[in-house]
Amino acid sequence: MELKKIIEEKSKESWEIYLPSISIDCVVFGFHDGALKVLVLKMKGKNLLGLPGGYIKKRENLNEAASRILQRRTGAENIYLSQFSTFGDLDRSESFFEEYSDTLWNKQRFVSVGFYALVDYSKVNLVIDEVFDPCEWMPIEELTEFMMDHQMIFDKALSTLRKQLNDKPIGYNLLPEKFTMPELQKLYEIILGKKLNRGNFYRKMLRYDILEKLDESRKGGAHKAPDLYKFDVEKYQLALTNGFNEGW
Amino acid sequence: MELKKIIEEKSKESWEIYLPSISIDCVVFGFHDGALKVLVLKMKGKNLLGLPGGYIKKRENLNEAASRILQRRTGAENIYLSQFSTFGDLDRSESFFEEYSDTLWNKQRFVSVGFYALVDYSKVNLVIDEVFDPCEWMPIEELTEFMMDHQMIFDKALSTLRKQLNDKPIGYNLLPEKFTMPELQKLYEIILGKKLNRGNFYRKMLRYDILEKLDESRKGGAHKAPDLYKFDVEKYQLALTNGFNEGW
Repeated sequence: MELKKIIEEKSKESWEIYLPSISIDCVVFGFHDGALKVLVLKMKGKNLLGLPGGYIKKRENLNEAASRILQRRTGAENIYLSQFSTFGDLDRSESFFEEYSDTLWNKQRFVSVGFYALVDYSKVNLVIDEVFDPCEWMPIEELTEFMMDHQMIFDKALSTLRKQLNDKPIGYNLLPEKFTMPELQKLYEIILGKKLNRGNFYRKMLRYDILEKLDESRKGGAHKAPDLYKFDVEKYQLALTNGFNEGW
Repeated sequence: MELKKIIEEKSKESWEIYLPSISIDCVVFGFHDGALKVLVLKMKGKNLLGLPGGYIKKRENLNEAASRILQRRTGAENIYLSQFSTFGDLDRSESFFEEYSDTLWNKQRFVSVGFYALVDYSKVNLVIDEVFDPCEWMPIEELTEFMMDHQMIFDKALSTLRKQLNDKPIGYNLLPEKFTMPELQKLYEIILGKKLNRGNFYRKMLRYDILEKLDESRKGGAHKAPDLYKFDVEKYQLALTNGFNEGW
């Protein structure tokens, strides 16, 4: 079926199923090959990137909707999702559908709630769809032009993620189960986009008390074998909920 | 006119003016008499506290709507408003209007965007309304039961404000133009709900580089007169926008 027909067909359904005026956009980060990547999609025939998103069912909580949308796109369950901001400017998305009738669902005004997620790259199976090309992982330095206001949503997600490194742990699901301190530091450096001092990083990370030092070390290098660590899942979850209580 | 009639009358207007499914709730903090206070209202005849809120006009940006709502309630212009979270659980507000017809605007499902504001207590003129008793300032330790999910919205605003003390300045508009370091520390202690170490506070605050030390000191006490400071407005605004860039 022609793309325009598919979108018009879906529109009728959407008016029945979803809550009007409100949508969800997801910024999904994964860590792979030493790079921070983000999940993007392209609408068929358009050369613009988009963030995976959707709408809230009339009888569904906001957070449930975000999980459902992400699961449908990625096949991954129990994804850690964090709401970061809501985008409500006029004409943030409406004009994208200007070639359609004014009664098209997608052409209405939507205030969009942004969620970001950190996922295990290896557990994601990208799902195919009639309207969009399949999602793909793209390194954040290689992103090209986004549709609608998705650049703004992406930028805000990344700046929030960077800020949250100060009061929440990160790394579980992004790193292998056992890792070295330099590997953890590398993850932070990639997210922050800057080099960190090794000694400061080490001290700060130990003070957070979320790591468990293992009785093994990484074998095989020419240098002294570095110690291996894993996350103490209980303490990690606690810190995820309560924050690090650093600062004042 | 009877309250029920007024609400039903307003409902008809609301369906025409506003975007469906989406609302705004504001948590407005002020500092007065050495206490952190919050602006609350009571619906006439109900003994529950509520947060001032409203809806978004069909042709109005989200942030503009929040400013308009707050200005109408407080008479104050140019209030620093910060979006902190969006609340979208089912039945968060609908059942509050159970005695009304299902077509009542207020009885619909609304996903609500929370904004918090820090205002100059002295510049606020509380505005009277037909549906609600006038807003009043209430010290945060004296708050009684809230309507709907407003306790959750308030709690989240306060915890966000506490966290943001770590990466944004606070105090401008809340303190008099000239203040001493102990006065600024007192403000932090009241917001955080805990005592702070004097030396650490002093060092951290100077490192933030947002204060200007004046050639005057507070006269009149038995002790050595404490130095007076004021905010360097330019640096303060810059830090408000960019954050303190502490942390990693």
